[in-house]
Amino acid sequence: MTPTALAELLAAVAAGQLSAADALGRLRDFPSEHLPFATIDHHRALRQGRPEVVFCQSKTAEQVLAICDRLQHAGGGFLATRVSPEQLALLRGQFPDLHWNDPGRVAFLPGTEIREPNGTVAVVSAGTSDLPVSEEAAAVLEALGHVVDRLVDVGVAGLHRLLAESERLHAADVVIVVAGMEGALPSVVGGLLAQPVIAVPTSVGYGASFGGIAALLGMLNSCASGITVVNIDNGFGAAVAASRILRR
Amino acid sequence: MTPTALAELLAAVAAGQLSAADALGRLRDFPSEHLPFATIDHHRALRQGRPEVVFCQSKTAEQVLAICDRLQHAGGGFLATRVSPEQLALLRGQFPDLHWNDPGRVAFLPGTEIREPNGTVAVVSAGTSDLPVSEEAAAVLEALGHVVDRLVDVGVAGLHRLLAESERLHAADVVIVVAGMEGALPSVVGGLLAQPVIAVPTSVGYGASFGGIAALLGMLNSCASGITVVNIDNGFGAAVAASRILRR
Amino acid sequence: MTPTALAELLAAVAAGQLSAADALGRLRDFPSEHLPFATIDHHRALRQGRPEVVFCQSKTAEQVLAICDRLQHAGGGFLATRVSPEQLALLRGQFPDLHWNDPGRVAFLPGTEIREPNGTVAVVSAGTSDLPVSEEAAAVLEALGHVVDRLVDVGVAGLHRLLAESERLHAADVVIVVAGMEGALPSVVGGLLAQPVIAVPTSVGYGASFGGIAALLGMLNSCASGITVVNIDNGFGAAVAASRILRR
Amino acid sequence: MTPTALAELLAAVAAGQLSAADALGRLRDFPSEHLPFATIDHHRALRQGRPEVVFCQSKTAEQVLAICDRLQHAGGGFLATRVSPEQLALLRGQFPDLHWNDPGRVAFLPGTEIREPNGTVAVVSAGTSDLPVSEEAAAVLEALGHVVDRLVDVGVAGLHRLLAESERLHAADVVIVVAGMEGALPSVVGGLLAQPVIAVPTSVGYGASFGGIAALLGMLNSCASGITVVNIDNGFGAAVAASRILRR
Amino acid sequence: MTPTALAELLAAVAAGQLSAADALGRLRDFPSEHLPFATIDHHRALRQGRPEVVFCQSKTAEQVLAICDRLQHAGGGFLATRVSPEQLALLRGQFPDLHWNDPGRVAFLPGTEIREPNGTVAVVSAGTSDLPVSEEAAAVLEALGHVVDRLVDVGVAGLHRLLAESERLHAADVVIVVAGMEGALPSVVGGLLAQPVIAVPTSVGYGASFGGIAALLGMLNSCASGITVVNIDNGFGAAVAASRILRR
Amino acid sequence: MTPTALAELLAAVAAGQLSAADALGRLRDFPSEHLPFATIDHHRALRQGRPEVVFCQSKTAEQVLAICDRLQHAGGGFLATRVSPEQLALLRGQFPDLHWNDPGRVAFLPGTEIREPNGTVAVVSAGTSDLPVSEEAAAVLEALGHVVDRLVDVGVAGLHRLLAESERLHAADVVIVVAGMEGALPSVVGGLLAQPVIAVPTSVGYGASFGGIAALLGMLNSCASGITVVNIDNGFGAAVAASRILRR
Amino acid sequence: MTPTALAELLAAVAAGQLSAADALGRLRDFPSEHLPFATIDHHRALRQGRPEVVFCQSKTAEQVLAICDRLQHAGGGFLATRVSPEQLALLRGQFPDLHWNDPGRVAFLPGTEIREPNGTVAVVSAGTSDLPVSEEAAAVLEALGHVVDRLVDVGVAGLHRLLAESERLHAADVVIVVAGMEGALPSVVGGLLAQPVIAVPTSVGYGASFGGIAALLGMLNSCASGITVVNIDNGFGAAVAASRILRR
Amino acid sequence: MTPTALAELLAAVAAGQLSAADALGRLRDFPSEHLPFATIDHHRALRQGRPEVVFCQSKTAEQVLAICDRLQHAGGGFLATRVSPEQLALLRGQFPDLHWNDPGRVAFLPGTEIREPNGTVAVVSAGTSDLPVSEEAAAVLEALGHVVDRLVDVGVAGLHRLLAESERLHAADVVIVVAGMEGALPSVVGGLLAQPVIAVPTSVGYGASFGGIAALLGMLNSCASGITVVNIDNGFGAAVAASRILRR
Repeated sequence: MTPTALAELLAAVAAGQLSAADALGRLRDFPSEHLPFATIDHHRALRQGRPEVVFCQSKTAEQVLAICDRLQHAGGGFLATRVSPEQLALLRGQFPDLHWNDPGRVAFLPGTEIREPNGTVAVVSAGTSDLPVSEEAAAVLEALGHVVDRLVDVGVAGLHRLLAESERLHAADVVIVVAGMEGALPSVVGGLLAQPVIAVPTSVGYGASFGGIAALLGMLNSCASGITVVNIDNGFGAAVAASRILRR
Repeated sequence: MTPTALAELLAAVAAGQLSAADALGRLRDFPSEHLPFATIDHHRALRQGRPEVVFCQSKTAEQVLAICDRLQHAGGGFLATRVSPEQLALLRGQFPDLHWNDPGRVAFLPGTEIREPNGTVAVVSAGTSDLPVSEEAAAVLEALGHVVDRLVDVGVAGLHRLLAESERLHAADVVIVVAGMEGALPSVVGGLLAQPVIAVPTSVGYGASFGGIAALLGMLNSCASGITVVNIDNGFGAAVAASRILRR
Repeated sequence: MTPTALAELLAAVAAGQLSAADALGRLRDFPSEHLPFATIDHHRALRQGRPEVVFCQSKTAEQVLAICDRLQHAGGGFLATRVSPEQLALLRGQFPDLHWNDPGRVAFLPGTEIREPNGTVAVVSAGTSDLPVSEEAAAVLEALGHVVDRLVDVGVAGLHRLLAESERLHAADVVIVVAGMEGALPSVVGGLLAQPVIAVPTSVGYGASFGGIAALLGMLNSCASGITVVNIDNGFGAAVAASRILRR
Repeated sequence: MTPTALAELLAAVAAGQLSAADALGRLRDFPSEHLPFATIDHHRALRQGRPEVVFCQSKTAEQVLAICDRLQHAGGGFLATRVSPEQLALLRGQFPDLHWNDPGRVAFLPGTEIREPNGTVAVVSAGTSDLPVSEEAAAVLEALGHVVDRLVDVGVAGLHRLLAESERLHAADVVIVVAGMEGALPSVVGGLLAQPVIAVPTSVGYGASFGGIAALLGMLNSCASGITVVNIDNGFGAAVAASRILRR
Repeated sequence: MTPTALAELLAAVAAGQLSAADALGRLRDFPSEHLPFATIDHHRALRQGRPEVVFCQSKTAEQVLAICDRLQHAGGGFLATRVSPEQLALLRGQFPDLHWNDPGRVAFLPGTEIREPNGTVAVVSAGTSDLPVSEEAAAVLEALGHVVDRLVDVGVAGLHRLLAESERLHAADVVIVVAGMEGALPSVVGGLLAQPVIAVPTSVGYGASFGGIAALLGMLNSCASGITVVNIDNGFGAAVAASRILRR
Repeated sequence: MTPTALAELLAAVAAGQLSAADALGRLRDFPSEHLPFATIDHHRALRQGRPEVVFCQSKTAEQVLAICDRLQHAGGGFLATRVSPEQLALLRGQFPDLHWNDPGRVAFLPGTEIREPNGTVAVVSAGTSDLPVSEEAAAVLEALGHVVDRLVDVGVAGLHRLLAESERLHAADVVIVVAGMEGALPSVVGGLLAQPVIAVPTSVGYGASFGGIAALLGMLNSCASGITVVNIDNGFGAAVAASRILRR
Repeated sequence: MTPTALAELLAAVAAGQLSAADALGRLRDFPSEHLPFATIDHHRALRQGRPEVVFCQSKTAEQVLAICDRLQHAGGGFLATRVSPEQLALLRGQFPDLHWNDPGRVAFLPGTEIREPNGTVAVVSAGTSDLPVSEEAAAVLEALGHVVDRLVDVGVAGLHRLLAESERLHAADVVIVVAGMEGALPSVVGGLLAQPVIAVPTSVGYGASFGGIAALLGMLNSCASGITVVNIDNGFGAAVAASRILRR
Repeated sequence: MTPTALAELLAAVAAGQLSAADALGRLRDFPSEHLPFATIDHHRALRQGRPEVVFCQSKTAEQVLAICDRLQHAGGGFLATRVSPEQLALLRGQFPDLHWNDPGRVAFLPGTEIREPNGTVAVVSAGTSDLPVSEEAAAVLEALGHVVDRLVDVGVAGLHRLLAESERLHAADVVIVVAGMEGALPSVVGGLLAQPVIAVPTSVGYGASFGGIAALLGMLNSCASGITVVNIDNGFGAAVAASRILRR
């Protein structure tokens, strides 16, 4: 239930077009809807200004479809992350207008309420292999109504590649930095800029990168102050954190 | 060198009161000043809009004093964290007007340039034992010119204590949540609010808390989306991250 | 050998229908039966009031079938967990009346001795992805003769979903809480309730969840006192722990 | 606020001896009382049937005294764990009737409401060095109104010491098993008994015991089913878990 | 080169049947033979009284065949562990008389020198799932000329199964104990017996067993003194350690 | 852009054959070339005297082909590591003259500028299973213009195999030692020699080798002083480190 | 109770000098003696042929004295390890004839039954800093009646120091190898010898030695087969393991 | 024994001034000298061209003095690292000419053989707190006869401080980079330079720096190729590695 839908409902009551009892019934149904395997939080859009997001990993394709279906019926559209090919096929069958970001594995169906674009987020990635994570962030940001500026493959081993783009970096409202291996890029970016910097470690690497632990620790211990960090490979979380900043 | 000082210097050049060569000399000297054991980054205030911060842990008291002295001479005042009693004594001897936050171990000497207070940050702590970290954050925020609203000891085992303060939480521009043990508080706060939420794990706990690892992992894996995390016990980093958001 | 079977045997001896020597022979055979790859503990039902449970993971389908066959011949029925599709096929061929819980992968064949249902256990799960573990717990509880009340997908990021069910929670004799990611749900539940709360971390999550370690550490360090914890994904163990409480 | 106190308050209102407004005032004050460094949960006794417990580690002696003082004024007495010598001295000065368990470092002041002893808990420890933890459990159990039966130094390397006490073990309602090093004792006890078994790993050991990790992992992976585990050295948590079982 | 072969060679020199130069040539060739991908240590049989053992994991089938072929030509037969089905097929094609232990994945071709059986080793395993490891140990022991007594599935959760076999345990010269999960069995066995006890942790388990770490730590921290430990799943190493004891 | 190409360009400007503006244009284009998924650092050859290396793991075959194509057009040839069979097929289709090291999975296309061979590197490996890593090092060294001397399968369990090759070891300019399991070989080699020794831990092993951690820690803690270490399985990194030494 | 004492007791019964009932009484008292903080296993000498050993770490000096006193009264003398200066002072006051090994912190009081020396154990240590551990092993071996040959500071970085002592190594019945840092020495020794080799990792080292983990992992992954390992710094355990081998 | 001393000895034999037997005696004594707690490797100077180095941590002051005394008598002087104040006092009493580097805790007494200075090593440190490690490296380099150029406090959060010194960096033969926290500095330096770069992680930091693990992992996973790494805080090892490069 979007804020607009709620306002309209209340206005209908005020105008005598809807009885209080009926309004209550609609409101009672919505906040949490029970499926046998899920309790859908329709209340989140009211509470946090963005749709419930469906994390598809370790759900069956049928479960994903059912949840998205309920969300779509409630009018808010849906945003789904970590979508597998099998899940995608089912969703596309049901929702022909689905938006799809392939490297980021993000599916998006806009709701009825369109918001003005708001704020620019620079999504900076250290290497080609980090693209699945940086594109997850970019796709979620676009679905949430923000402008994305992508800087690709500008890791610290060739510093001039990054320094050459400093104007674009300074122009962003928020900067998301995505890096695997030693995860040093956020330290350099954070030292150059005054804006909020959100660091995303990726599982890119081998040996002692331990599936992203090296990058995660590097970012948590950054000598550039005021860098914040999200979970390994969590492009989605970084995008929502940026949106929290831009929508306040 | 503060932005104001720089503007004045350039104005003096424009007015013919200062030769370009002399201006260059002053600028060249400042950006990095070399002590035998430190290279002071006077350029940071220009670049990032806040003073160089002195992290005192594992420096000698004499090193701390010398660095603060140079920063003070450059006009920006200083902000020092993790100050030991011995370091504090030396600083107080030299700077009688020093501000001091005792549980947070933060010393602050304001510079010549005062900024308008800007933005309110709620600093929420889960337990009494988290105070050294939450006060480090609060003291740094106040030094950087922000208003702090403290919510103390409102951990998730007694949820009504937190829910009773939801108005104060909703009124904040940014929320910093400080918690040790299992670090669950940011998940609950992040689920209730739409604003930016910065989580600080603390080393409070014993046994399998592993000096804060349990809380850190809890926060990184939060089911509330868009929570960002800083290093264990890093109240300072959370404060700077909040300031990056408020000053953009 | 169930307690009833033992009582009948002893009564037959007392009544002169069975010689002491024959009785001894039967008893001697039973407690531990030797297969080439297993030593079956028929004595456990006597000692602990519940059947030997067959943990099927890393056994061959033939080994599982042989063990279940021996248990069935001994009269106690059997309970098998972590049953693979191949093992299930073999068991169903031999035992057409087999009960099967699909998401929980639990197979159950009731023994000759039926006990009265005893006690209600609320099985609370944080997310849809935790179902395989929560259903393992539920299926084992039902096999052991307890009533199960399921609360699905009520994680802490949408607290109202949980609080809306507080009556059902208060009505349970024991509460099992199943959660992955940061594992915060048991802390909230444990703070609300006075009953025994058993926490089950799951391997649901990614990145720094480390296959359930984050949830496990969160639960071990819970700020809600008196929560106990079982191994990652160990729905079976939680169910037996609840049964130990209810059957004492 | 104890249940009895609440009943009396409500009766006074019903009898016209207290106005509703005054009753509300008293109730509003109580549930959470704010000290500058703590938010005391007076509501817990109502909610969970046992007093708020003060965990003294990493609190100052003055903080501990102030919190205990407020709890005592609210009528419920108090229970304090991990009490340091300095904290003890301050508490004894203020509360001459304080009960003290020395190896367990637990201080206890009974409240006005005395409950009948209920249930017997066997507290089994593997070695002499585990006493601080097993006595913490025992002292908390006694404060919560349960009978304790202590079995000391009966580790698995001399199995006959344990088997010789099997009658006492079978007579207990709940068994708490405290062990460091490899933590094998709960597996043996859990295999012998049908009752609830709560395992407490201790930090006793050296080298690859890693401060209790070896024992913790041993207990989480116990081949005896239905064992539950609490945090390393958490005798307090085990006692509360046993009390949850006995008081339901 | 076996000791017997060396003695014959030296006797031939002494008898004038072989020139010193020729003897030298033969000896020089043997100790280390160079293949493009391996340096075969023919000297080991002389030095340590047992054949070079071929660890087949992460070698190609062709590499395994070539190495075994060279060892066989040198007269000592060969012993190969962790043999994959593909490697087995190739070896069987070349060596029709190959001995094969299926659960243990061990292939063995006896050399020309047969030694008298020497010493009995009890191989004790905690569960059915530990068989691949316990059978690797058993097969290697038999190849090295020792007698094996197998005790299967006698874990500590059903202690009577182990105690019933104490005579067989006391009769062994060395005892190898194989266990996964919490790895408690060697502590119990080590407390009962005075003989050498070699503990082998296995990767059997799930969740917090961490692929055998829990069992490994349990065994290293055993409260039964004088237990020694080998690597996780290293049945081969335990067998060789037992042989070092029996052959000294 | 190779140093020679740069010199020719500058000479053309000096000779009036090329305008400064055109030269600048060419130079500006080259240092970093933007593909949609990569930013190619053509400047590296100038800066570090060796070609940009393409790390193929977690890139698509199409991405690898496109990057190699751009590098080849820029005149420097290319060097690609961790090449998968699918990537190899695509590269071979496009570049028939491609050099290929099969165990090391390294593809190499020489550039137009050939350098004199310089320096000998001994590549020493502890076991047959370490070949993929030692051959990665060897292939990269050969591509960078160094002579390689291979010592295969000379681990410390048969020390005479290593000692027999001491002359070859003493003749090398730099020694790369590749070992898995306990990683002891660099300590022995480092104690024998005065030259630079670069240790490469491999993921060869099982159980408590933890994918190379045991070898990595062994090498970092070597009692032979002055050994340096690269990441697990990082034969490429060791080769480049050796080349840095030889080309200085 | 020593075997001799038991034989004498039984002989006295047989000779009619002691009634069966009295004998039973003495036997019943002995096997486990209960102190308030310890259950002493007097039965161990009978069962395992060596005295109960008192591990003094984390016991109070009074507890150690009381336990040793009871053991001494039972006739078997005592052996105490990890004895602190305070514990030593108390023991020496009570037992003037106490034997003391200072670097190993081992106290020993011989019992009434003296056994013939049996077997030689070479105790090999890699560095001077390993002496506390190697001397703990040596002192325990001497107390248990074995001959010790010490080889000090013969680490692998100077291999000739070890090879120069190969005769002494070959002459030993069992070899204990004590090493910190990378723990490579047992691999080299194990490759040279055919006897049992017991490896003891020590916590000597810094940085990534992680308190002995590097050495422990090195030894568990030794490429020399048949090496067994005990806990970090566990010289005592290695000595008992050697004694199990020599006394069988 | 230095190479010069050896040459003189052999010349004396050749000239008939020393009998072969006497020469042998002197040589036999020297290579390894046995103290009760150490075996001194006098042979190292011959083998590796630098003196035996005394690692003083976890040795007693008396042991350090005795070892240094023997080395001094053998003519090579000595170099001691991690010297404690107590050890220093003893050494200074015996050797008044001792050189001492205070932050690096390195003591040095030159031998009779002076070598020409050879090669320049840039020692770059990220922060003031890294000085103990960078000075250990610098002091050892100077003792081994190399020129040191120190760059202090030039971490990546203020990149201009480093870039301003690029001429000094390019002028060095070898670069040692010392950094704690996230350890990103070697990646930036390694990307700028073509020379050998040796990275030293330090234990500087807190929380998730885990005593240097974060920096160590960062350096092992550096995206700048050909960086090598030594143990945490191992300034000594880095210096010797640089010397191996410069002396070849």
